[in-house]
Amino acid sequence: MTDLHIDGQRLWRSLEELGRVGAYTDERTGLIGVNRLALTAADGDGRRLVKRWFEEAGLAVRVDAIGNCIGRREGRDPSKAPVMAGSHIDSVPTAGRFDGCLGVLGALEVVRTLNDARVATERPLEIAFFTDEEGCRFGTDMLGSAVACGRLPLERALGLCDKDGKRAGDELRAIGFSGDHPARLAPPRAYVECHIEQGPILAAAGMDLGVVTGVQGISWWELTIAGRAAHAGTTPMRLRRDPGLAAALINVRLDEMARSGRYGAEMRATMGRIDPRPGLVNIVPSQVVCTVDLRNPEDADMAAAERDLFAYVKEIETRLGVTVEARQTARTPRIRFSPDVQAVIARQMERAHLRFETILSGAGHDAQELSALCPTAMIFVPGEHDGISHNPREYSTPEACARGVDVLLHTLLELGAT
Amino acid sequence: MTDLHIDGQRLWRSLEELGRVGAYTDERTGLIGVNRLALTAADGDGRRLVKRWFEEAGLAVRVDAIGNCIGRREGRDPSKAPVMAGSHIDSVPTAGRFDGCLGVLGALEVVRTLNDARVATERPLEIAFFTDEEGCRFGTDMLGSAVACGRLPLERALGLCDKDGKRAGDELRAIGFSGDHPARLAPPRAYVECHIEQGPILAAAGMDLGVVTGVQGISWWELTIAGRAAHAGTTPMRLRRDPGLAAALINVRLDEMARSGRYGAEMRATMGRIDPRPGLVNIVPSQVVCTVDLRNPEDADMAAAERDLFAYVKEIETRLGVTVEARQTARTPRIRFSPDVQAVIARQMERAHLRFETILSGAGHDAQELSALCPTAMIFVPGEHDGISHNPREYSTPEACARGVDVLLHTLLELGAT
Repeated sequence: MTDLHIDGQRLWRSLEELGRVGAYTDERTGLIGVNRLALTAADGDGRRLVKRWFEEAGLAVRVDAIGNCIGRREGRDPSKAPVMAGSHIDSVPTAGRFDGCLGVLGALEVVRTLNDARVATERPLEIAFFTDEEGCRFGTDMLGSAVACGRLPLERALGLCDKDGKRAGDELRAIGFSGDHPARLAPPRAYVECHIEQGPILAAAGMDLGVVTGVQGISWWELTIAGRAAHAGTTPMRLRRDPGLAAALINVRLDEMARSGRYGAEMRATMGRIDPRPGLVNIVPSQVVCTVDLRNPEDADMAAAERDLFAYVKEIETRLGVTVEARQTARTPRIRFSPDVQAVIARQMERAHLRFETILSGAGHDAQELSALCPTAMIFVPGEHDGISHNPREYSTPEACARGVDVLLHTLLELGAT
Repeated sequence: MTDLHIDGQRLWRSLEELGRVGAYTDERTGLIGVNRLALTAADGDGRRLVKRWFEEAGLAVRVDAIGNCIGRREGRDPSKAPVMAGSHIDSVPTAGRFDGCLGVLGALEVVRTLNDARVATERPLEIAFFTDEEGCRFGTDMLGSAVACGRLPLERALGLCDKDGKRAGDELRAIGFSGDHPARLAPPRAYVECHIEQGPILAAAGMDLGVVTGVQGISWWELTIAGRAAHAGTTPMRLRRDPGLAAALINVRLDEMARSGRYGAEMRATMGRIDPRPGLVNIVPSQVVCTVDLRNPEDADMAAAERDLFAYVKEIETRLGVTVEARQTARTPRIRFSPDVQAVIARQMERAHLRFETILSGAGHDAQELSALCPTAMIFVPGEHDGISHNPREYSTPEACARGVDVLLHTLLELGAT
């Protein structure tokens, strides 16, 4: 069985074909990116394509109440808990072709390989794509897997609204993926996700692959800063209460904090959204809504960074005469994956004579939700261009992708054998 | 004739009635503001109301090719150049009831007063509201008066587009104010505009009114800052090229510059628009479009501020690895109003035993365009709440408004007498 290999070219063709759904050309660079924001028409198109592929691979496909799509390949003992693999196919609006898709199409390639070789497994094998992993549209990431694994109540998830006030539940129905299967997932035997690293570490170290030990802590905040709209030409500086300036000062401070090393060497901080109202050239804004994305591999460092950030926010409130309302939109502590599943993954990499190391994920993944339900770990595939991601330049070589999925195959075979 | 007075209550009722067109309730404060952004349906409603009032006051009304609306009260000698008064009725999206409207409805109140008293003037009297003084929508302020007075070609003005790509010319037609009268204005004898101060100076000095000596220099820039979109969780700080951080640093620097005193005590600087793309919590933006509004009473100080600002922008480009494209969207040097018209205005104030002083306008006004065509000056009416403007809290008392318009009446009478 160890000489069984996935078909890297077939995997690559699937990645390319799915990458054409929601493709767009970046105006400035001319690069072709992907925009399949969750529960949009493009996401619907992508879902239908992958669901069809699941069915063509002979899987029994179910869609649950939060739109997660799960395909089942029966095991010799259908009563045993399945081994599971998957990821997501929704994307940020400026994405490449690999984020999430590699895990889903890699799992599909495993099924196709087992079918071609007529290999039966003792346990059933289930492969899945989960709804709205990115969280860009409804403000909460890992939406589908969080509901499936019990962190988020279904009704709350369905009731989330996007910027335009559109409900997730309505949008799910609109694209035809509001399924009738219960969203809560029965615990699988194990969950394994193959994903691009989305960072520079593995490539810089000359590694073929990485065994993911867990996910760094993530904290998202939405700040609503209220000041006072005023005429830009006539209002003296000393009479202003400018929430745009407050957001700018916070943004500058976040950068200083992350680079200072005071909160560990790996702290990251981003202000991705800044939305001044009315947002016009000659008006001091009355209000700014902005977001803060904090990451840290150590929970204690994260807590210290948040404490110091909000002390600074207090200072800004006093100094600028603005008020800041902070709302936590997502927070996950450092996640630790199953040492057992990590060991199974590492064994396959050793057997294939690959160079690999353990790595902590900088990004959140569906696997962190699944890890609350069952033994879980991930395989990371290195990326080119410093591992740039959420960008049309995101790229992993066909060889790297095939290596990662080959390890996924043998990991699932071992976990599903007994 | 010196005992002739305008009807302050009638003026106030007109201000209130026009203020109900485009009214909205501010969510946070509960205050009622005005949103009659240029060439929107609400602006059309306001225009139709005021045009009807012009007609009911017996004026011969013409609408020109850029939508300026001018009402003429015939003089004893119709061949003489008219004296003119006016302002604008378009608003910023978060406005009060006074900005612009006081000058238009004040001029209308002058006509009504002359009608009631059966006073004829030697010269014709023309009163006007000009199109899109605010410049919020199409990026160029004083749009209508700039075309009427020759600074801006008609075709260029009609071809300007708003954020959604809608052409000014089309929007003008849509609200029914694309007139057939030529836009270029024959030079009047003089132009006088009564306007709220939109600043704290007159009230703080205990003045009833101000004689405006001119307008400070204005410089508007649109900065397009290009960086690189990247994953907020995985991209190390050192690999980022964050245009949002660049905009924040520029915003902070603008505030420091304006408060430093190095560019005169009256420099003002505002970043009113900040538009990161894609503008999502977990993505380092690929691009930010932001605006810079600079004001300075001294052209040399303005030039120094611009020079130092762009030196800093260059520094930011190098330090952050971003590129900044700067586009000037408006620029007017310091404007000096006619000493003769200022003297006529001051004489009326003295005669009425008012406390007044000369003042330089912090905001741009249609009067600055007219001043290129004919002797021009302005009357400023003080505002409450530190003269806050472009805000629902904008307020001048009925008494202050009546005082300003009374001076307008007698100024126009004197200028129109010979």
